Amino acid sequence: IEANVGTTLVADVNNYFTVFSGYLVFFMQAGFAMLCAGSVRSKNAKNIILLNILDACFGCCAWYLTGFAFAFGDPVPFEHCGGLEGPALLECEAGDPIPGLSASQAFIGNRFFAQSNLPRSSFWLWFFQFTFAATGATIVSGAVAERCKFEAYMLYELMIVMFVYPVVAHWMWSTCGWLSPWRSEATAAKQSYLYFAGSGVYDFAGDAAVHMVGGVASLAAAWVLGPRIGRFDAAGNPVDMPGHNASLTLLGVFLLWFGWYGFNPGSAVAFSLTGSENYSKVAIAVAINTTVGAAAGTICTLFIAMAYQYFTLGVVVWDLIIAGNGALAGLVSITGPCGFVNTWAAFIIGGIGGFVYFVASKVNLNVLKIDDPLDAIAVHAGCGVWGLLAGGAFSAPGMVTDVYGTMPDGSQRPYGFIMGGNGSVLAANSMAILVVFGWTLAIMTPFFILLKKVGLFRVSPEVEAQGLDVSHHGEFSAL
Amino acid sequence: IEANVGTTLVADVNNYFTVFSGYLVFFMQAGFAMLCAGSVRSKNAKNIILLNILDACFGCCAWYLTGFAFAFGDPVPFEHCGGLEGPALLECEAGDPIPGLSASQAFIGNRFFAQSNLPRSSFWLWFFQFTFAATGATIVSGAVAERCKFEAYMLYELMIVMFVYPVVAHWMWSTCGWLSPWRSEATAAKQSYLYFAGSGVYDFAGDAAVHMVGGVASLAAAWVLGPRIGRFDAAGNPVDMPGHNASLTLLGVFLLWFGWYGFNPGSAVAFSLTGSENYSKVAIAVAINTTVGAAAGTICTLFIAMAYQYFTLGVVVWDLIIAGNGALAGLVSITGPCGFVNTWAAFIIGGIGGFVYFVASKVNLNVLKIDDPLDAIAVHAGCGVWGLLAGGAFSAPGMVTDVYGTMPDGSQRPYGFIMGGNGSVLAANSMAILVVFGWTLAIMTPFFILLKKVGLFRVSPEVEAQGLDVSHHGEFSAL
Amino acid sequence: IEANVGTTLVADVNNYFTVFSGYLVFFMQAGFAMLCAGSVRSKNAKNIILLNILDACFGCCAWYLTGFAFAFGDPVPFEHCGGLEGPALLECEAGDPIPGLSASQAFIGNRFFAQSNLPRSSFWLWFFQFTFAATGATIVSGAVAERCKFEAYMLYELMIVMFVYPVVAHWMWSTCGWLSPWRSEATAAKQSYLYFAGSGVYDFAGDAAVHMVGGVASLAAAWVLGPRIGRFDAAGNPVDMPGHNASLTLLGVFLLWFGWYGFNPGSAVAFSLTGSENYSKVAIAVAINTTVGAAAGTICTLFIAMAYQYFTLGVVVWDLIIAGNGALAGLVSITGPCGFVNTWAAFIIGGIGGFVYFVASKVNLNVLKIDDPLDAIAVHAGCGVWGLLAGGAFSAPGMVTDVYGTMPDGSQRPYGFIMGGNGSVLAANSMAILVVFGWTLAIMTPFFILLKKVGLFRVSPEVEAQGLDVSHHGEFSAL
Repeated sequence: IEANVGTTLVADVNNYFTVFSGYLVFFMQAGFAMLCAGSVRSKNAKNIILLNILDACFGCCAWYLTGFAFAFGDPVPFEHCGGLEGPALLECEAGDPIPGLSASQAFIGNRFFAQSNLPRSSFWLWFFQFTFAATGATIVSGAVAERCKFEAYMLYELMIVMFVYPVVAHWMWSTCGWLSPWRSEATAAKQSYLYFAGSGVYDFAGDAAVHMVGGVASLAAAWVLGPRIGRFDAAGNPVDMPGHNASLTLLGVFLLWFGWYGFNPGSAVAFSLTGSENYSKVAIAVAINTTVGAAAGTICTLFIAMAYQYFTLGVVVWDLIIAGNGALAGLVSITGPCGFVNTWAAFIIGGIGGFVYFVASKVNLNVLKIDDPLDAIAVHAGCGVWGLLAGGAFSAPGMVTDVYGTMPDGSQRPYGFIMGGNGSVLAANSMAILVVFGWTLAIMTPFFILLKKVGLFRVSPEVEAQGLDVSHHGEFSAL
Repeated sequence: IEANVGTTLVADVNNYFTVFSGYLVFFMQAGFAMLCAGSVRSKNAKNIILLNILDACFGCCAWYLTGFAFAFGDPVPFEHCGGLEGPALLECEAGDPIPGLSASQAFIGNRFFAQSNLPRSSFWLWFFQFTFAATGATIVSGAVAERCKFEAYMLYELMIVMFVYPVVAHWMWSTCGWLSPWRSEATAAKQSYLYFAGSGVYDFAGDAAVHMVGGVASLAAAWVLGPRIGRFDAAGNPVDMPGHNASLTLLGVFLLWFGWYGFNPGSAVAFSLTGSENYSKVAIAVAINTTVGAAAGTICTLFIAMAYQYFTLGVVVWDLIIAGNGALAGLVSITGPCGFVNTWAAFIIGGIGGFVYFVASKVNLNVLKIDDPLDAIAVHAGCGVWGLLAGGAFSAPGMVTDVYGTMPDGSQRPYGFIMGGNGSVLAANSMAILVVFGWTLAIMTPFFILLKKVGLFRVSPEVEAQGLDVSHHGEFSAL
Repeated sequence: IEANVGTTLVADVNNYFTVFSGYLVFFMQAGFAMLCAGSVRSKNAKNIILLNILDACFGCCAWYLTGFAFAFGDPVPFEHCGGLEGPALLECEAGDPIPGLSASQAFIGNRFFAQSNLPRSSFWLWFFQFTFAATGATIVSGAVAERCKFEAYMLYELMIVMFVYPVVAHWMWSTCGWLSPWRSEATAAKQSYLYFAGSGVYDFAGDAAVHMVGGVASLAAAWVLGPRIGRFDAAGNPVDMPGHNASLTLLGVFLLWFGWYGFNPGSAVAFSLTGSENYSKVAIAVAINTTVGAAAGTICTLFIAMAYQYFTLGVVVWDLIIAGNGALAGLVSITGPCGFVNTWAAFIIGGIGGFVYFVASKVNLNVLKIDDPLDAIAVHAGCGVWGLLAGGAFSAPGMVTDVYGTMPDGSQRPYGFIMGGNGSVLAANSMAILVVFGWTLAIMTPFFILLKKVGLFRVSPEVEAQGLDVSHHGEFSAL
């Protein structure tokens, strides 16, 4: 028994690390709720807080029924391997016979529905990934704020967590997904070409699966739903509709930033391995990159917005709300590449992320004329795209090895072209961008249009004018 | 020394897990404070926040002086055992001679007052259990809101943390308590009948000691104190008294839910053992059950309240505040059984918990005519009772073994009657319900009546009308 | 490889502990933001929240460029030593040749600028200490509230995190600092006299480096900046200027208290060692002392303020805001000595800390006529001084050994004079008080005066009257 202490303990420590990180990710629900509550007019605050708490609740049911099964219901379970010597979690399976994977298994998982036959040793993954699914789903609440029917939102929530998100997560992160860098088939067959573009998608903490899915669904929803009454004047020019409580909004930003320390470092899903090197260095570098990305995003956005106002209106304004969105932009931008870029690169990625957010927000509002009250599209879809591209550019060879191990033949995995690598990662990550846009729009747009056709999607103009709280959620006021 | 690395490290990891969980439990004080602040009228917000912060402060002093001693001042200390092979924490003592326990030791602990002679290796337990005591005590602040004298609340706080709560905790959780499933006397003597009803009370994270004690004390307090002026009209019908800030209230719910990940999983008090199995599975299953219970509670309560309003008033209202209380109802309901029920059972327990809360709240207000501003009685006493009963019904054999180990003779411990077990657990848990009601009412009711007799309990009608903040807590306003 | 499991894992666990603690310290930024937002008038809330979020962002850049290098850019890196047998982190270096340290190295670090050549195995320290630097810097935002130019604050932030704070941290905590109890030179040379006053400064979690630096910089800033318009009447008597939202202020206090569980216990920077004793006892005792200090500070301040009002005005007022500041006073007071005092001493230290805060606040306002809107000077400088003195008085011999190990010759390190030790610690800590006052005032006062001379420091009277939010930060209101 004594011989087992090390491996058992290592697995327990990794489980602990991952599950505790999941608590922080869950806490992002509180952040989103406060961010949204402060950013809408007070007459709609209760409505949007209710959407946010139900994201967690319906998300939990949806994840239980089919979400986890579609995402991770693979023939090869994704588990911590206590006796693992190298950093890649699945190398322990290398010598084992891998069942031949069918084409459908590369597309979607097919077991563990309602946790049936799910071993308790995989519960850590179920919980951690649940928190991700719920976080991704909640992004849309900001885009549909102040005009969406509550009943429609419940249906949307089930749709995205039961099916749309899990399939993308399967592609990117499972042991079978066609875009995954963890493909067990490749490992077992020692055939590197089984990784898409020779590398698979490098998306450490979920710019594709979480932020782009949420952001693109926001795009579909806000576009189908149309702008709030009064958001554009008769000439089609946008009219400001400021929220009611900046303190709550920024509290939300702080809570989200804090929760991101679960989201990004937690995605290492391991903190120690039984090899000779300290694996904790991966998660710690991620924590630093997350901080740096957020800081650079905040500062760049603040100065860009100040300069923009100065050159267009001639006044110097340091806009708190824009700075807060800049922090989120930096955080989203670094989410994908955080596991394999150097600190200096994280500054660049976060800073450019602020710029991407600012431009995307302006294009969204002034060119596409889409009303997105929380700027969810610009922050999550815009910076999600940028984060994936940045991973193709800046991923560093040694850090890639720490995260994904070597190729099946022992050679170096592909890495960023700016760091001296080739275009493999950029190609794979670009494919991820395309398929997430395609997949999410192809499903969610008809879904939202259908809701609209049957009159379920949008509240009446009278209710919208009066505010959703008084008509739908009782008398208790939300300051 | 090298041989010790494993066992020392396992103990340190468990300590770390438990103490970090304690931080999250402490954070629930912030949740309660925001929940209460938002749910009262703005003229009383500062008063109730002060009650909440003093719960932690007086609770700390009370726990130091006598609380810990009465709860865990046992001849057999409750410690992590680094070299432990099975899951039950105290099996390591099995071969040791256990001092014959006196009847008084089954009732109350008698050493470690003011931490005297408490070994630093037990400080983890002192801290973790302190956070529980303070959390239980704070429940009452909601029931006495908007009319209780500040001085009376300070006395109450000392009373409950110095004596009432610790004794119940001793019964349920110590190594000597007469209802405890951890009784070292039984283990040492290998006599199963020394467990009450053959099983002892199965209360994983504290439906009896924490939630029922707090909820029943709330009942005594609200009943003796009487309703707020204007809460019932001349005909005795309740009049709505909505709080002033739903955003704060729901922030409180989110913070409490987050903190519950310390409260429930932390109650495993260990995350790894030196045996061959990963003990982390216990705490992780608890984290999932906690989430599921909260989700089911929220959804069920939301729909029940909607249906109730629809059938009584003909309107569809999705009530945010009720949904928030539903989340708490689900969380309280799963707190007791979370360590030994399957995920599907957690859905049922949380969902029924929402129903229990809703009915208890209506009965409380419309039948008993008790004014409980935060619904503390319905949430904590009502769902606490249900959680204990549910443990008797749904506890699963394998999970019971993971938590409590086997009987002294190596046979399976009793488990839930719905799962194929017998009625032992139900019998023991029902006894827990009875004695907590009896004990708490027997002490707290005379105590509150005494406070009332000497004029210390309730503020004057003038002060109540004006609000407690302006008259007692200075000019700074609480929005 | 199997032989390495223990030491690798211990290092990973310690890294995990420290980095997770760093997340909690970062979360204190949210606490400060809410504390400040609630305590100012609503017309300045957005301004001060922006200062707080930029503390983290500019602090990150400043720490990256020079902060870490000046603080910890030592010839002997400060690392976790997995194979370490005793408690002191640096004993593992004892047998190694230590490069002769130059005088400049005792004053300031000189490598690792922009993380160059910083090994990833030290990233944990970079991150944890970053959160400290940002926390220290944010203290000043309270002292300059409602009248400071945003641009000036950005310059201040760079100044303090790039240079002023790191140098003090170097003195106290690095392996070379002239006041440090961790001096590797002393360890290697086995010459105890190389510790200042024979002991070096005992400042467990940063009363000198963090709280005093922030508090003294606050003193310089508030003094140079002058009081807000209307803070003193024509006769020079203070006029109350209450904040606008006590709920937010107290939410801030709760968040800070929670974050302090990262700040203080995290400063153990290790939770397990490969020796035979459980090192976790150090951090756990710190968690208890932190709680006790806060509780005692809250209660004492509440009663002192009540008594003061009663004897001066004849009314009984339980002031929530003062109680909240009392909690912070207790927390700051225990921050320095928390690692080496007994629980009973923590009660005394926290309680006296409340008294120190109350008196310092009165002196500040009524005698020095300094307007410090958040009482940052009284809380952080006042209680920081007291905490250092208390460490000289109450540090207990066994606990000192647990933290710092023995003297190079194996004898007991000095400890508190009340505990039977000599005056060494008091002497060293008093020197720390003097030099932090001298260093911080000598740099920051001229810096602020310069800002004032060039017209960069203070907003115009018109802007101050109107509030900083509307003129500088856009229309979105902060309730």
